[in-house]
Amino acid sequence: MIDPRQKVVWYGGEYYPEQWDEETFKKDLEWMKQARMDIVTVGVFCWSLIQPEEDRYDFTYLDRTLEIFEKEGFYVCLATPTAAPPLWMVRKYPDILAVDMNGHRKTPGGRANFCPNSEKYREFSVKIAEKLAERYKDYKPLVLWHVNNEYSNYCYCETCAEKFREWLKSRYKTLEEFNQAWYADFWGQRVYDWQEIPIPTTRNFLMFRKDRFQSTNPAAYQDYRRFMNESLLECFQLEYLAIKKHTPNVPVTTNIMATFKPLDYFEWAKRMDIVSWDSYPDYGEDHAKVSMRHALVRGLAGGRAFVLMEQSPSQAIWKWYNHQKSEEALRLHTFQSLAHGAEAALYFQIRQSRGGCERFHGAVITHADSNETRVFGAVKRVGEELKKLQDRVLNTRVLSRVAVLFDWNSWWALEDSPGPNIDFTYLQELEKYYRALLRWGVGVDVVSVEEDFNKYKVIFGPALFMVDKKTAEKIESYVRSGGVFVATTMSGISDEDNLVWLGGYLAGLNEVFGVRIEEFDAFPPNEERTVEFLNKKYSVKLLEALVKVEKAETLGWYVDGLYTNRACITSNKYAKGVAYYVGACASQQLANDFVAYLVSKHDLERFCREPIDGIEIVQKEKNTGGKLLFILNFDKVGKRVDIGGGSWRDLLSGKIFRGEISIGPEDVLVLEESD
Amino acid sequence: MIDPRQKVVWYGGEYYPEQWDEETFKKDLEWMKQARMDIVTVGVFCWSLIQPEEDRYDFTYLDRTLEIFEKEGFYVCLATPTAAPPLWMVRKYPDILAVDMNGHRKTPGGRANFCPNSEKYREFSVKIAEKLAERYKDYKPLVLWHVNNEYSNYCYCETCAEKFREWLKSRYKTLEEFNQAWYADFWGQRVYDWQEIPIPTTRNFLMFRKDRFQSTNPAAYQDYRRFMNESLLECFQLEYLAIKKHTPNVPVTTNIMATFKPLDYFEWAKRMDIVSWDSYPDYGEDHAKVSMRHALVRGLAGGRAFVLMEQSPSQAIWKWYNHQKSEEALRLHTFQSLAHGAEAALYFQIRQSRGGCERFHGAVITHADSNETRVFGAVKRVGEELKKLQDRVLNTRVLSRVAVLFDWNSWWALEDSPGPNIDFTYLQELEKYYRALLRWGVGVDVVSVEEDFNKYKVIFGPALFMVDKKTAEKIESYVRSGGVFVATTMSGISDEDNLVWLGGYLAGLNEVFGVRIEEFDAFPPNEERTVEFLNKKYSVKLLEALVKVEKAETLGWYVDGLYTNRACITSNKYAKGVAYYVGACASQQLANDFVAYLVSKHDLERFCREPIDGIEIVQKEKNTGGKLLFILNFDKVGKRVDIGGGSWRDLLSGKIFRGEISIGPEDVLVLEESD
Amino acid sequence: MIDPRQKVVWYGGEYYPEQWDEETFKKDLEWMKQARMDIVTVGVFCWSLIQPEEDRYDFTYLDRTLEIFEKEGFYVCLATPTAAPPLWMVRKYPDILAVDMNGHRKTPGGRANFCPNSEKYREFSVKIAEKLAERYKDYKPLVLWHVNNEYSNYCYCETCAEKFREWLKSRYKTLEEFNQAWYADFWGQRVYDWQEIPIPTTRNFLMFRKDRFQSTNPAAYQDYRRFMNESLLECFQLEYLAIKKHTPNVPVTTNIMATFKPLDYFEWAKRMDIVSWDSYPDYGEDHAKVSMRHALVRGLAGGRAFVLMEQSPSQAIWKWYNHQKSEEALRLHTFQSLAHGAEAALYFQIRQSRGGCERFHGAVITHADSNETRVFGAVKRVGEELKKLQDRVLNTRVLSRVAVLFDWNSWWALEDSPGPNIDFTYLQELEKYYRALLRWGVGVDVVSVEEDFNKYKVIFGPALFMVDKKTAEKIESYVRSGGVFVATTMSGISDEDNLVWLGGYLAGLNEVFGVRIEEFDAFPPNEERTVEFLNKKYSVKLLEALVKVEKAETLGWYVDGLYTNRACITSNKYAKGVAYYVGACASQQLANDFVAYLVSKHDLERFCREPIDGIEIVQKEKNTGGKLLFILNFDKVGKRVDIGGGSWRDLLSGKIFRGEISIGPEDVLVLEESD
Repeated sequence: MIDPRQKVVWYGGEYYPEQWDEETFKKDLEWMKQARMDIVTVGVFCWSLIQPEEDRYDFTYLDRTLEIFEKEGFYVCLATPTAAPPLWMVRKYPDILAVDMNGHRKTPGGRANFCPNSEKYREFSVKIAEKLAERYKDYKPLVLWHVNNEYSNYCYCETCAEKFREWLKSRYKTLEEFNQAWYADFWGQRVYDWQEIPIPTTRNFLMFRKDRFQSTNPAAYQDYRRFMNESLLECFQLEYLAIKKHTPNVPVTTNIMATFKPLDYFEWAKRMDIVSWDSYPDYGEDHAKVSMRHALVRGLAGGRAFVLMEQSPSQAIWKWYNHQKSEEALRLHTFQSLAHGAEAALYFQIRQSRGGCERFHGAVITHADSNETRVFGAVKRVGEELKKLQDRVLNTRVLSRVAVLFDWNSWWALEDSPGPNIDFTYLQELEKYYRALLRWGVGVDVVSVEEDFNKYKVIFGPALFMVDKKTAEKIESYVRSGGVFVATTMSGISDEDNLVWLGGYLAGLNEVFGVRIEEFDAFPPNEERTVEFLNKKYSVKLLEALVKVEKAETLGWYVDGLYTNRACITSNKYAKGVAYYVGACASQQLANDFVAYLVSKHDLERFCREPIDGIEIVQKEKNTGGKLLFILNFDKVGKRVDIGGGSWRDLLSGKIFRGEISIGPEDVLVLEESD
Repeated sequence: MIDPRQKVVWYGGEYYPEQWDEETFKKDLEWMKQARMDIVTVGVFCWSLIQPEEDRYDFTYLDRTLEIFEKEGFYVCLATPTAAPPLWMVRKYPDILAVDMNGHRKTPGGRANFCPNSEKYREFSVKIAEKLAERYKDYKPLVLWHVNNEYSNYCYCETCAEKFREWLKSRYKTLEEFNQAWYADFWGQRVYDWQEIPIPTTRNFLMFRKDRFQSTNPAAYQDYRRFMNESLLECFQLEYLAIKKHTPNVPVTTNIMATFKPLDYFEWAKRMDIVSWDSYPDYGEDHAKVSMRHALVRGLAGGRAFVLMEQSPSQAIWKWYNHQKSEEALRLHTFQSLAHGAEAALYFQIRQSRGGCERFHGAVITHADSNETRVFGAVKRVGEELKKLQDRVLNTRVLSRVAVLFDWNSWWALEDSPGPNIDFTYLQELEKYYRALLRWGVGVDVVSVEEDFNKYKVIFGPALFMVDKKTAEKIESYVRSGGVFVATTMSGISDEDNLVWLGGYLAGLNEVFGVRIEEFDAFPPNEERTVEFLNKKYSVKLLEALVKVEKAETLGWYVDGLYTNRACITSNKYAKGVAYYVGACASQQLANDFVAYLVSKHDLERFCREPIDGIEIVQKEKNTGGKLLFILNFDKVGKRVDIGGGSWRDLLSGKIFRGEISIGPEDVLVLEESD
Repeated sequence: MIDPRQKVVWYGGEYYPEQWDEETFKKDLEWMKQARMDIVTVGVFCWSLIQPEEDRYDFTYLDRTLEIFEKEGFYVCLATPTAAPPLWMVRKYPDILAVDMNGHRKTPGGRANFCPNSEKYREFSVKIAEKLAERYKDYKPLVLWHVNNEYSNYCYCETCAEKFREWLKSRYKTLEEFNQAWYADFWGQRVYDWQEIPIPTTRNFLMFRKDRFQSTNPAAYQDYRRFMNESLLECFQLEYLAIKKHTPNVPVTTNIMATFKPLDYFEWAKRMDIVSWDSYPDYGEDHAKVSMRHALVRGLAGGRAFVLMEQSPSQAIWKWYNHQKSEEALRLHTFQSLAHGAEAALYFQIRQSRGGCERFHGAVITHADSNETRVFGAVKRVGEELKKLQDRVLNTRVLSRVAVLFDWNSWWALEDSPGPNIDFTYLQELEKYYRALLRWGVGVDVVSVEEDFNKYKVIFGPALFMVDKKTAEKIESYVRSGGVFVATTMSGISDEDNLVWLGGYLAGLNEVFGVRIEEFDAFPPNEERTVEFLNKKYSVKLLEALVKVEKAETLGWYVDGLYTNRACITSNKYAKGVAYYVGACASQQLANDFVAYLVSKHDLERFCREPIDGIEIVQKEKNTGGKLLFILNFDKVGKRVDIGGGSWRDLLSGKIFRGEISIGPEDVLVLEESD
């Protein structure tokens, strides 16, 4: 629950009164109520409006806006406007603008264009945050602070370079340590003075290859990412502290972007009171990928309620081809977020802008300026359904016995340096196994390596590239005491300094897995290799490991390619547990059948007797006891699902369900145990 | 007619004596005469030759060149050399060099590399233009001034930024107006001082997406384009005025490039005495696209004679694959230009260079250094045929009752900001309808929104994205008084500030069209949707509008996709006229059949009873009365065309034609009414 | 022979003790010996280690390393470390860092990042080279100096610009000469002061088109390449001279990259005591392309022994998809290098790094840290086989009567300026004819235009674009006195100033060829044209010449396209010789059959009665008399080869072969005449 006053899943969106006359504003308030909205985000980009000069503030606009929303009975999520510094500010203090990786300073006029280490920026942003907190600390409708907006901007300026060197000094203490960690003697890069250390730029360390920036020194960009992640997080924290001084009881968030590579959100989540995120699934995007992002956000939130801060009711703007969203898709996306823990669902934005970059971005009230549009109808229908749920889905939790490890350090380390195969991606490797589990209705958490492993029966560490000693020991101890651990292609390659583990990869856990990984063959997407697993043949792609079996049992073999007749998939009993290794980048079919084998072998709790594609089933437990079942059918054909013995009531239709039930195409059921 | 002395269509090309010894020059003059040439362009890039130092001029080369051409009886088109400032000049005044949109100043050594707002550049260019005019004002063969060459270069330097701000100030008067027009509160970009306004660069406003630069602020790049268009036009005008001081009676032109996005040639045409253009059709390019460019130039010239200033007799240089031009293609291209109003046809260039960027560009006299080449033969044949025409094609006009609106502001606004579909292009949308009309031999003008609408029975405004209030009223009044207006996908989206019209797009003309456009669904080129129009099914592409019918009659429906069973093509009787709307991006087939419907419904004057592909027929009327008929067969098979009752004489063969006639493959007839 | 002490083909690789502790080092020495290695390269990137400050040197590391290698009985190839200047150095003297063609200085942290004209860089690099030579002049195992590493880096800084102008002055003497050579009047680029001359940059002269940088002034980039080639070569020579002062008898090399476009290695080879190169064939790359690179290196070495300085035992790192190398491929690649003259074969590298850019690059001892890996086994097997050869393959020579001319100036001139077809590449045109010859087992040299032509019966000059007067005369005289010369598409286009030859291309040799080349039609890869040659039809691609036959005999005709029924392939008897012209870019099939025609017509010495694909046969003659036959089967199926009457002993298996013999799939025979 976001606020003690919360009685239903909140519904609303971002509104920008500064773009409209008051008459339009009032009409929109009526229409928002028609759509059953109760919460609004304001202020996201109002900095230039409320601070027209360095020493002058003018809150007229915000005062009036907040007054109206209060009068009309809306809850308010109030934003600090620090994502877009005013033009006067960047003109006066040009160092506020970030420098790109080519070494060129941005020119004014964008957003998220500030240097996170600019002292001036930090000073100004903290000040405006505090001003807002001070002014509106007694504003009743205020239920959430929204700091900045989609932090994202790395900077490569001289200030950052200086602070990076300090950061390195504090991380490595001595130059000897540093030179070792950065493997400085390779290509003769030994550092004798901290000042000599260059930052990664496109003119030394970074190459643009295909769609990736890759670092010629794997240690360098890894550390720069860590540093930039911290730099931006510091910006958030400084505003957080300024706000908390005045409103210690109002939760503070910033809207994150889930599987967003530049920021390690596990670090961020620790610093937020409530996690909120912006979900922009692609048209026709596989629901399992969207689900994994929700599960990741759930993991970030530690299972507590989160906020769907932004979604589009219809169209995007930044894609080449911006499909409209069907009414069914909007409904499914919204309920999918609830299934994973969203207790508020907001749109970007309420009213479509007439100008600016995003004028063609979808909005609840479109350019047609009407409440009789297709989009408004769809939004309103969802609003009405949310009200039917009353408070029944609040304060519920997904309970899972299976986890997939998500690790930003591995993501960076795997993809940011020239590796064996440029097309092998971190996310795809994770999604593949997540998708295979989803088909069974198995509850899956997506968590960090810092999570308590002992909560889980099975843990997947797909492509868990970077494994430090502590994590290696944690895995060993988990398996020793009965856990089941699955490692795959490119798991366990490097230590925390991004130096490769010797002796057969797998982070020194060769005993645990009973194998040594000797090398990886790589091939392009248009080539394939074949693996036999439990008497069936499967294709594998991009990468395959040469697995030297020492004690493990071999479950799968290569039947062609350079490693013909050698092991590919192995299982090793280690003390009370089992460690699996999948040496090749599996096709989805192989991942599915491998997971099916695990499900049966380790008798995982699952919802389906047979896997069902196109369906997502999320079982939840209420804090107060009792169970909920979200059944989402993403398919365009109806499905049958066996929900077992009990009797369940659909909170949307009021109907009672039991046994093998039908769910219509692209339909949603929110079932509550009713006996 | 370009000059009172003109008795035939002039024929010639650019010649660069500075590249050759006098013996070669003389041989070339002979060969030019063999090819029946009578006009030559000189001086295009001779600046460094005639002004070797800031204060020293040396006209020896030009004096001698002009003397020889006079002696040999050629007319002369004399160029100002200002497209390529001398190296000494850009070394001495580096600010003359333009800055690119990345913020980097060009380095010396190219052409069209000057900053159009550089005071030094303007000073020098006006001075050299005046020097030339003064010196050669009594040179008899002089029939045309050719200022600069293919103006094209936008600049992003500090001088330009300063002048841009002044330009904005003079356009918007107050900051309040400016902030509103630029929709400044979006992303918090409110301006409190004109000096704060940034220019669009790749580091703030411009993103390179696919093959386009798109602006994150639609207003910003639109205004920058307007400003740059004016800046370059000022350069032209300054030279124009300097020349006119000394040769008030010699017409002045600059060679434009027709459908060239950066420059709004409707503004330019107003300032030129004669319009001239460079035509470089692609190998195998659809003749309708080339025809539309000619028709546009005709529109720019207000129907008066224009000059085909450059075409290649054979090969281009800048393409990846530079096909040779067949003899037939050369002949067709030349006569096509005559059909639309060219009264002089020149080549770039007469003799192929031994060095320089364009050494492999085709020329009349090739590296083979012979008058017995394939190319020379083809050029000579055209020369001989032009002489056969005598003065019969001079002073003739195409009379059209149909117009297609061409609008640079719409082109920019549609393509330069992130819109729903990046592949939807302005030119293709226009060409599609132009092509559909061409098949019927319907006379079509391509004109600006400033044209007198009442001349036309039917006006097409395909993708006429930007429609200001005045134009909207003009359309309304046109339809009210009996006109037929066709709007299509993405017509009427924004006002002159590039702010979106509210209430259903179509520039507030919902009454006129009887529909409201609610939204556009977008999809990639490999997806298609289907529309039923008059009981036949057609595919539509990229974009489809959700059309809410209020009073219109529905002619076409979506039969699949998100808008199944909703209207796509509508017709609305409004007062005495009719307004059509085609909501989806039609396939050529649909455009063809829609146009066929209009042709029949509104009984448009056309030449063909049934549409014929591959043929272009242009009917012209002589100033002195009497008619001409250009029939061009671009197809590799012969065709039959019914030219009706009268009797016509082919000016090329002398043969008489009447009734249903035959035209050979890739052949040309120039028929004159002979009764 | 590299050194008088050499008794066998040396085997080894690069080792970097600075990356490992001494225990690992010692283990590695054992494993190297197991793999039968006897030579090691050290010091390639140790600059920052041995010169920690400007005035301090510390050779501890190198002393110890060399001591150990000596003790363990290895020969040593000692590198100067100048490819990677220390970080302290580039911080102190930032001008050492090169500037890229966008005009941006590199930032520290890479390799090959120095400006070759930096005085400081030259001073430091000469000094460290001399220090090393002085210190280790009496080091017994030292058999080869390895200067720098893969020179490659062009620079575009102000220092280079200055020196370029001096270079131009010394080349052209007068501005008049310069302006003529650079064709300065094109686009008005006349130079009045040497200081005005701009260097080619991406902001004036260079355009990035497709995958090429093309210069808008063909003369400019051609000269800049010549200048840069000389600048880098000067760096090499300066180190060379410093070394030679102390060790006049130890040969000096630098590792080149064969068909590497930026450097004209024919100039380099003249300055090296021994040629060495790095061979990184692509996975599955056609063996003929690899063979041509070896033959080129053989040509560079003037037929003397060369060194295979680097190859990967397995995987590369810089490709998108880094395939592993099979054991068979490694063996074939190694023996192929021997066939062409390698007398030492080294790996990059012995032990795989834990960090740095190339941590996933293959190595003899992999991350698995074991001598029982697949890779180690493959390396060891090759080592054992090399020892079986004893000294039998040393001091042998390939004797060829056929040559293919390789010319960097033509490569640059053809590809670096906008030409008729951007996809027509220099290397492919050469490889095509080389491949066609290889199938017959014809001995082919790949040599420069400076080679003595009279050694050859037939010379191919495919796409020999740039032909100066001297070379033209040499070709004429060669044919006159009985030689057979083959020119193809784009041969003989420009003179040494890159100015086009007039009068029908072919460098004014129209008499010799009996034809004039009038023009080239160009078309994209997805179009094709057809040529009939000796009653068979063949496709031709990309370019076709319009050949005007004057005296030649026509062997092939176009049967479609613009030049239907005109000549394409001609043969002309000229005095005692014959000159062939192949006007179109032939398909491999046409090249094969054209070569087959020549083989038979001119009765070329060849090994095969019928051509065999997939096999490479190299015949060698020992200095001491006697013959060797390398037969390499790159195919995955066995082949039969007729080796004729004599009796031959396989040095690997000891077996005797005669007559028609079998060779297994991917197998190698090294046969020695045994009677």
